[in-house]
Amino acid sequence: MMMNMPFSVPAMLEHAEKYFGKKYVVSRTSSGVTKITYKEISERTRRLASALTNLGIQKRERVGTFAWNHHRHLEAYFGIPGAGGVLHTVNIRLSPQHIVYVINHAEDTMLLIDEELLPLIENVQDQLTTVHTYIVMTDRPELPETTLKNVYHYEHLLQKGDPNFQFVEVEDENDPVGMCYTSATTGNPKGVVYTHRSTCLHSYGLGLVDTAAICERDVAMAVVPMFHANAWGMPYACVWFGSTLVLPGPMFTPKILLELIQEEKVTLAAGVPTIWIGLLQELERQSYDTSSLRAVLCGGSAAPKGMIDAFVNKHHIPFIHAFGMTETSPLATVSRLKAYQQGISMDEQLSYLTRQGFVAPGLEIKAIGQNGEIAWDGKEMGELLIRGHWIAAEYYNDERSEGAFENGWFYTGDVVTIDEEGSIKIVDRMKDMIKSGGEWISSVDLENVLMGHPAVLEAAVIGVPHDRWQERPIACVVLKEGVTVSKEELIEYLVPSFAKWWLPDEVVFMNEIPRTSVGKFLKKALREQLNNHFVS
Amino acid sequence: MMMNMPFSVPAMLEHAEKYFGKKYVVSRTSSGVTKITYKEISERTRRLASALTNLGIQKRERVGTFAWNHHRHLEAYFGIPGAGGVLHTVNIRLSPQHIVYVINHAEDTMLLIDEELLPLIENVQDQLTTVHTYIVMTDRPELPETTLKNVYHYEHLLQKGDPNFQFVEVEDENDPVGMCYTSATTGNPKGVVYTHRSTCLHSYGLGLVDTAAICERDVAMAVVPMFHANAWGMPYACVWFGSTLVLPGPMFTPKILLELIQEEKVTLAAGVPTIWIGLLQELERQSYDTSSLRAVLCGGSAAPKGMIDAFVNKHHIPFIHAFGMTETSPLATVSRLKAYQQGISMDEQLSYLTRQGFVAPGLEIKAIGQNGEIAWDGKEMGELLIRGHWIAAEYYNDERSEGAFENGWFYTGDVVTIDEEGSIKIVDRMKDMIKSGGEWISSVDLENVLMGHPAVLEAAVIGVPHDRWQERPIACVVLKEGVTVSKEELIEYLVPSFAKWWLPDEVVFMNEIPRTSVGKFLKKALREQLNNHFVS
Repeated sequence: MMMNMPFSVPAMLEHAEKYFGKKYVVSRTSSGVTKITYKEISERTRRLASALTNLGIQKRERVGTFAWNHHRHLEAYFGIPGAGGVLHTVNIRLSPQHIVYVINHAEDTMLLIDEELLPLIENVQDQLTTVHTYIVMTDRPELPETTLKNVYHYEHLLQKGDPNFQFVEVEDENDPVGMCYTSATTGNPKGVVYTHRSTCLHSYGLGLVDTAAICERDVAMAVVPMFHANAWGMPYACVWFGSTLVLPGPMFTPKILLELIQEEKVTLAAGVPTIWIGLLQELERQSYDTSSLRAVLCGGSAAPKGMIDAFVNKHHIPFIHAFGMTETSPLATVSRLKAYQQGISMDEQLSYLTRQGFVAPGLEIKAIGQNGEIAWDGKEMGELLIRGHWIAAEYYNDERSEGAFENGWFYTGDVVTIDEEGSIKIVDRMKDMIKSGGEWISSVDLENVLMGHPAVLEAAVIGVPHDRWQERPIACVVLKEGVTVSKEELIEYLVPSFAKWWLPDEVVFMNEIPRTSVGKFLKKALREQLNNHFVS
Repeated sequence: MMMNMPFSVPAMLEHAEKYFGKKYVVSRTSSGVTKITYKEISERTRRLASALTNLGIQKRERVGTFAWNHHRHLEAYFGIPGAGGVLHTVNIRLSPQHIVYVINHAEDTMLLIDEELLPLIENVQDQLTTVHTYIVMTDRPELPETTLKNVYHYEHLLQKGDPNFQFVEVEDENDPVGMCYTSATTGNPKGVVYTHRSTCLHSYGLGLVDTAAICERDVAMAVVPMFHANAWGMPYACVWFGSTLVLPGPMFTPKILLELIQEEKVTLAAGVPTIWIGLLQELERQSYDTSSLRAVLCGGSAAPKGMIDAFVNKHHIPFIHAFGMTETSPLATVSRLKAYQQGISMDEQLSYLTRQGFVAPGLEIKAIGQNGEIAWDGKEMGELLIRGHWIAAEYYNDERSEGAFENGWFYTGDVVTIDEEGSIKIVDRMKDMIKSGGEWISSVDLENVLMGHPAVLEAAVIGVPHDRWQERPIACVVLKEGVTVSKEELIEYLVPSFAKWWLPDEVVFMNEIPRTSVGKFLKKALREQLNNHFVS
């Protein structure tokens, strides 16, 4: 019938080598901004794969990277699989304890490390049980001083590598090609292993007009880190489709990003809401030419309406609001108006675009609520389940796979509503939902309104065990300095927005709300603290 | 690791049902133009699959269609695989003898036939050895008079079908989903069997920005017949991505097509050069609003520079010149300027766009010439080989697979040059190339220049066996009425354009050049006629 060729990540780079050899990567490193053609990148990647082979890499062996976004990291994306290994992008922002955990758990044998990040690895090297070789990525001609043992200079290795090295052929497209760990609220990070097949299919997903539309004429800037869900897959898609790829390197500022946009005529920039907040602030201070931007791609957490408004109406930059997770490669949904929705008012459009949108072709969703699969009415709430061609089937060697992956579906842990267009809206994390009398209450909805009260600095709402109702909401509130407000006043403030049974039974005033290492509310700690509030 | 879900063609329609239920198909049938939503199409397709199941369809059983482009044919595209069967789109333009051959060779058990095309099947029904059931697609409430035996009315079958029928689940994505036969210059047509996997991956290919960029906001008109390489895959891609699909039905004219473009605000129209010639002529006669068109997609045979020029510069309609074959699903290459080529002059751009372009991501090419793999220098000639995720691996139950599919490559039979950008230019059919003294001469190049001579109406150049040089070119020329020109004059006319050894040794004047059933030069007949010209 038809050829059944295995998908191959190194073959994506070979496509760029043949058809986009003159196109280039804009790479910012500690010594400045350089441009390297895909022809050069390919040759350097072949040298890297050759060097890793000389260092004894075995098939499926994990090689870690500990690096910012730059051309050497890109070479590792293709060179490690090109040598038959598996790329493990270690999140540099993890705690030292978790850095040790993920490297040992993945059994990385080699680590490619940015010069600037050496101290973080030096400090834990004695606890790394499987790493036998360190490779330092630096612009300096010589190896910087380091306490690491068995350490190589990346460029010296490349010099000795073979520029015509033939990448290891992919025999099974379901072989592993990369892995990322996703941080859990409690316990150690959980590993996701990507395959050649899933990575290539996800790239097709990113090239579709109604998702990210990544294409040859794009100058695409990945602000999202390459150690975070593969920079949303952009390094793969941009290489395959021949886009100019802009990698902004270490410790960038909004100013640096805007200068790159202006100078390189960036057409697509991808990052989390925090990045865009910073960019908007910098645009207030100084003007930059951002007219080359065809879109800003935003994910990682929900984009507020005001931010979308500022981009679309103040700066005339289209805003693509997307949703995904490490377990979903990450592209899952994109918020877009359908052709027949174009006529609604700008305000309605902006509100609509705060939803997370509908799934890319190749994925399927449903949501399970209190009474089974929820209606697509925009009201009923349920946990989002997702399956498809680039969705994880399990966590790597981890008992927590049970419960998260069942009957062929991934249970995202996110609670959503789905409207009749199929667009999802994330209302809460499953574990933070408050289950009261057989119904669900969204902690996030209550918090959002509470934080609109002029006296409230921060608010976290949690469900606390209750004899009669199973759980009841308690609001934990931090007031602004020098302001006072009563519990009753705050509850009264919520009345117009919610059904009566949604209103918190209690308001607890605090000095601060405990947070996780990445700055999210640590509701687990609050629940422990208030666990016995209603029951004895 | 990652989920390894099988690709499924019925799942594409289910995606449209969920996310694009309000979008519609514009279908022109004998009784006029109607709009049917994807929600309705889905329900009707479920009814069709249910009806076929009631008629006893077995897994992998072939069901033929003999029909123009309209919504019922679209329902068959999804309903036949949805019932576990294989869609065989019979080319209505084949000779009666070949129609019988392909239906019997595919072992079609049922045939869905357009009312207008009934006579063609009635005439051959006695020779059809495997068909046990006929289904007539018609707008009339009752079955038209017919000599066919065991015949059903499509709409009556649907009425009895189950609107909630669950499509047969795909267990192996490499299972067959459809088949087309491609006409051979000699002998019977050759069958290609598409799989769920190849069809879905080909659709991703069509959705990429740098190929056809098919997307939700498109109003896409498939002028290319649904019995010809699956209308280039548009029915699948448009459904999956939620485009409005315009199907122009039976016996359309340029006027009808332009009215559809104007009234439905068509954004993308796909067809062969002949269609576009007719459209350009009609645009000369009368003006239509074509401003909605974002592109015309042209393939099937080479688009001449003048045609591209007329669309781009006279009518301001971007022109996408593509190349493919039944064996390649069909999308193979697309002619596009890269970002850094945008600065060249309009004339250079137009010349460049007459090339067939470079391959879509997921495909690979090379070309084999006299001395092995050719250089990508735009000069050396070789037979185009292609492989990838939507390329056939064999002809269906056909000894001619040998020679055409070897070592994992499909030998296209087309001779190309490849330039340094990777863009191919088809210079001839392999069997029409003239092999002279160990070098190749392109018959097409010689013909193109000859036909530029004011006295020449038609010219076909063939290679004829030669004792010393293996083959030498002879030009067969038909002169315009009432004109004379000498052999020497014609040869002289070629001198400035070609190396001396390319010049034909002989010019034979004829009254007409024999043609195949689809209107191409029948060079085989010419070669037989002149076979002994140089040798005794």
